[in-house]
Amino acid sequence: MNYRMIVKSLGTALLVEAACMAVPLIVSLAFGESLFPFAVPIAAAALLGLAMQAIRPSSQDIYIREGFAIVALCWIAFSLVGALPYVISAAIPDPLDAFFESVSGFTTTGATVVADVEALPRGILFWRSLTQWLGGMGVLVLMLAVLPSVKGSALFILRAEAPGPSPDKFVPKIGKTAKILYLMYVLMTLLQVILLLLGGMPLFDSVVHSLSTAGTGGFSSRNASVGAYGSLYIEIVIAVFMFLFGVNFTLYYMSFKGGLKKALKDEELRFYVLIILASFALISIDTYGRVYHTFWEALRHSSFHVGSVITTTGFSTQDFGGWPVFSQAVILMLMFIGAMAGSTGGGLKCVRALILLKAIKREVKKSIHPKSASVIAINGKRAEESSVYGILVYLAIYLVLVILGILLVSADGKDFLTTSTSVISCINNIGPGLGAAGPAGNYAGFSGLSKMVLSMLMLTGRLEIFPLLMLFTPGFWRRNNI
Amino acid sequence: MNYRMIVKSLGTALLVEAACMAVPLIVSLAFGESLFPFAVPIAAAALLGLAMQAIRPSSQDIYIREGFAIVALCWIAFSLVGALPYVISAAIPDPLDAFFESVSGFTTTGATVVADVEALPRGILFWRSLTQWLGGMGVLVLMLAVLPSVKGSALFILRAEAPGPSPDKFVPKIGKTAKILYLMYVLMTLLQVILLLLGGMPLFDSVVHSLSTAGTGGFSSRNASVGAYGSLYIEIVIAVFMFLFGVNFTLYYMSFKGGLKKALKDEELRFYVLIILASFALISIDTYGRVYHTFWEALRHSSFHVGSVITTTGFSTQDFGGWPVFSQAVILMLMFIGAMAGSTGGGLKCVRALILLKAIKREVKKSIHPKSASVIAINGKRAEESSVYGILVYLAIYLVLVILGILLVSADGKDFLTTSTSVISCINNIGPGLGAAGPAGNYAGFSGLSKMVLSMLMLTGRLEIFPLLMLFTPGFWRRNNI
Repeated sequence: MNYRMIVKSLGTALLVEAACMAVPLIVSLAFGESLFPFAVPIAAAALLGLAMQAIRPSSQDIYIREGFAIVALCWIAFSLVGALPYVISAAIPDPLDAFFESVSGFTTTGATVVADVEALPRGILFWRSLTQWLGGMGVLVLMLAVLPSVKGSALFILRAEAPGPSPDKFVPKIGKTAKILYLMYVLMTLLQVILLLLGGMPLFDSVVHSLSTAGTGGFSSRNASVGAYGSLYIEIVIAVFMFLFGVNFTLYYMSFKGGLKKALKDEELRFYVLIILASFALISIDTYGRVYHTFWEALRHSSFHVGSVITTTGFSTQDFGGWPVFSQAVILMLMFIGAMAGSTGGGLKCVRALILLKAIKREVKKSIHPKSASVIAINGKRAEESSVYGILVYLAIYLVLVILGILLVSADGKDFLTTSTSVISCINNIGPGLGAAGPAGNYAGFSGLSKMVLSMLMLTGRLEIFPLLMLFTPGFWRRNNI
Repeated sequence: MNYRMIVKSLGTALLVEAACMAVPLIVSLAFGESLFPFAVPIAAAALLGLAMQAIRPSSQDIYIREGFAIVALCWIAFSLVGALPYVISAAIPDPLDAFFESVSGFTTTGATVVADVEALPRGILFWRSLTQWLGGMGVLVLMLAVLPSVKGSALFILRAEAPGPSPDKFVPKIGKTAKILYLMYVLMTLLQVILLLLGGMPLFDSVVHSLSTAGTGGFSSRNASVGAYGSLYIEIVIAVFMFLFGVNFTLYYMSFKGGLKKALKDEELRFYVLIILASFALISIDTYGRVYHTFWEALRHSSFHVGSVITTTGFSTQDFGGWPVFSQAVILMLMFIGAMAGSTGGGLKCVRALILLKAIKREVKKSIHPKSASVIAINGKRAEESSVYGILVYLAIYLVLVILGILLVSADGKDFLTTSTSVISCINNIGPGLGAAGPAGNYAGFSGLSKMVLSMLMLTGRLEIFPLLMLFTPGFWRRNNI
């Protein structure tokens, strides 16, 4: 284990975070708010980062173990430093609550402990949404994009942080990949800001909601979330962008390079669209007449929330906890599936769900014809058997974590629906669950232990299990164990 | 597909069922009840069975596809004929309800639509428990045991019906295996009857409860289930036998042959005992002081229900729906794990859970050391990679079925806890769920569609997915498709 290189990378990450915090500092200045909540952490992160960066590692080599360690520790460090503004501004005075909110931001979950977000300073609201924007594409991808010095073995970092099973198919050069990703990300976010402004949303709100949408996070500056604006136009813009940010960014790059036709034929994209349309239809039919008086109203609310949940954004315009149980069951199913791999969304990811379904189909076929042998293909390309196996084990680990999470959080004594959906919502980085943790509620009522467990689940979900699980694995930290 | 051989086997199964029904007929006679509820189905099954048996197949060969078809169709036929006494006696006048109760019996689930079982005729109560006894060891295993004519390719039938991933390791000869299994089964059941009689339980009740315990079914002749007797001795006897019937029968055979030491070292057995002790301790601590005033009371009730749920029996002495949420979460976890492979219990089975955990451990290790390669072993013997893969896919199919089940049953509009736990309880062949389907409730309030879905889930769970899934697979029935 190359400890020095890990410390050095952590130092770099802290410097990047200090630089990012300059933006909410400027926002605070513009609104005439106190600068302390950002000035203090910026100074602390910069000093600590410089000190750690000064370390001279004997070797620049990092391997997969170091990659995992860097990713897991950087995310924890980011979350810790990111919690300071909440504590210093007294917006969230309890340090554990502030850590929860910070993790929820960076992991793009959007679960909040704040009941009245409208009472928060503008700088803090901006920072909450900025953490989601940064966390969506990946804080270390940003590091790779802006710092030319970190390269070579950086593939291991990218692989450990990027969402989805196969991030390395993009373009060969890591630094270039990161730059292209962030460029597309910035442009799409800007486009959303402009469209929201055209709908009459104030500039500050437009920026906050666009940042949260882009990261598929879901933090809003309004207590009633997007529902507060009561504007069909705004809901449509946000719904469309939630959908767009849930698409694999590789497909945008492909379309941009003239491969639009090929991109539209992508199997995962078709699966993603199919699931959305089917859920949308089912919920519209189920809620029409029972919750909503006109079919248009049912369409409007079902499409917004299907998009919000499958992309794991978590914005709401309605409390879907009041929907019929069938619609809630559809929402719960969407929570597990999640967005496309290579997007900013969380969850299991569509491509994994698709491969699982193909593996099931093959197994059923094989049990009738034991001698039949077939390969599983995605987009006409054969999926390696080791990847199929990997996805099946991933599902098993995921389930064990959900069960352990439910067992730990159930010690709080909350009702079963609240307990189970808060765990499912956090590990899938969605935000709202059902019951007391639903769109109309928040996570303030959970115990300290549950908040820690949920924070770890959010990190585990965002980093796709392994980097965080490693930290708790005996033998991982042993020095001469390559 | 050898259709004639399938029809012929179905005929034999009907004759076996007609013979089995003679027992409740005698019970009805002894208690001076109407004989029609059994006489009519016996006559019908015997006539139909003889007619079907008369078919001359051109070939005696059956392969895995025929094995699956025979098992699935026999179970459905058994359930249909088994429902007739309920309808004819007007104990359960609605045919769909009667089918649900019959499936619940044969699959050893123990979910009931009858609110007041004490009002049922004795013959009907006896039949309910006998179906569980027959279903526990397997109706076709019985056929193989009593009929010397069905042999040769009968391995495919045994493999398709026996619970657990590897039933063929027992003794080489199928007919002999089936005989030994049933002999041990009869002896253990008799021992339980005697022990219950010694505790002062009436003979009829002792037999009914022993049959239901042996099949890990859970149908009781009392409305308050085992709790009605209020006897610590009776609870201990039943708890011990639930535990024993949840153990792999191969281990009894092994001990009998002098391998007790080896049997006690069985990894699955140790895992089963460990899970029971851990759950038992957790629930005792959680309920002590909150639900029960003395620690002994907490121990007594937690041990009984942990045994009842992990073995998927479903007897109750208390309504665990009133326990704290943490204890309910433990119960829910046990519902998924289930008993040992090769026992009469349902669920995922301990050996599958054990292999899943080992596969997870290996994957975590591999993600740190990508070049490390290790095999998964059970009892020091290497598990084939194809079995490990098979178990992972099994879990995935299982989950998809649970999700589909929840979606379909949620259309009833019952609360989420009731909906989800009724599905989980039925696919795992347990009986009671939580909420309205809990120990204090029953399944009468579900819609016809839900009862059909739950019946199919019970059959799917009991037959370990594939045989029943086949019936709905296009291509399965094609003639020249070997």
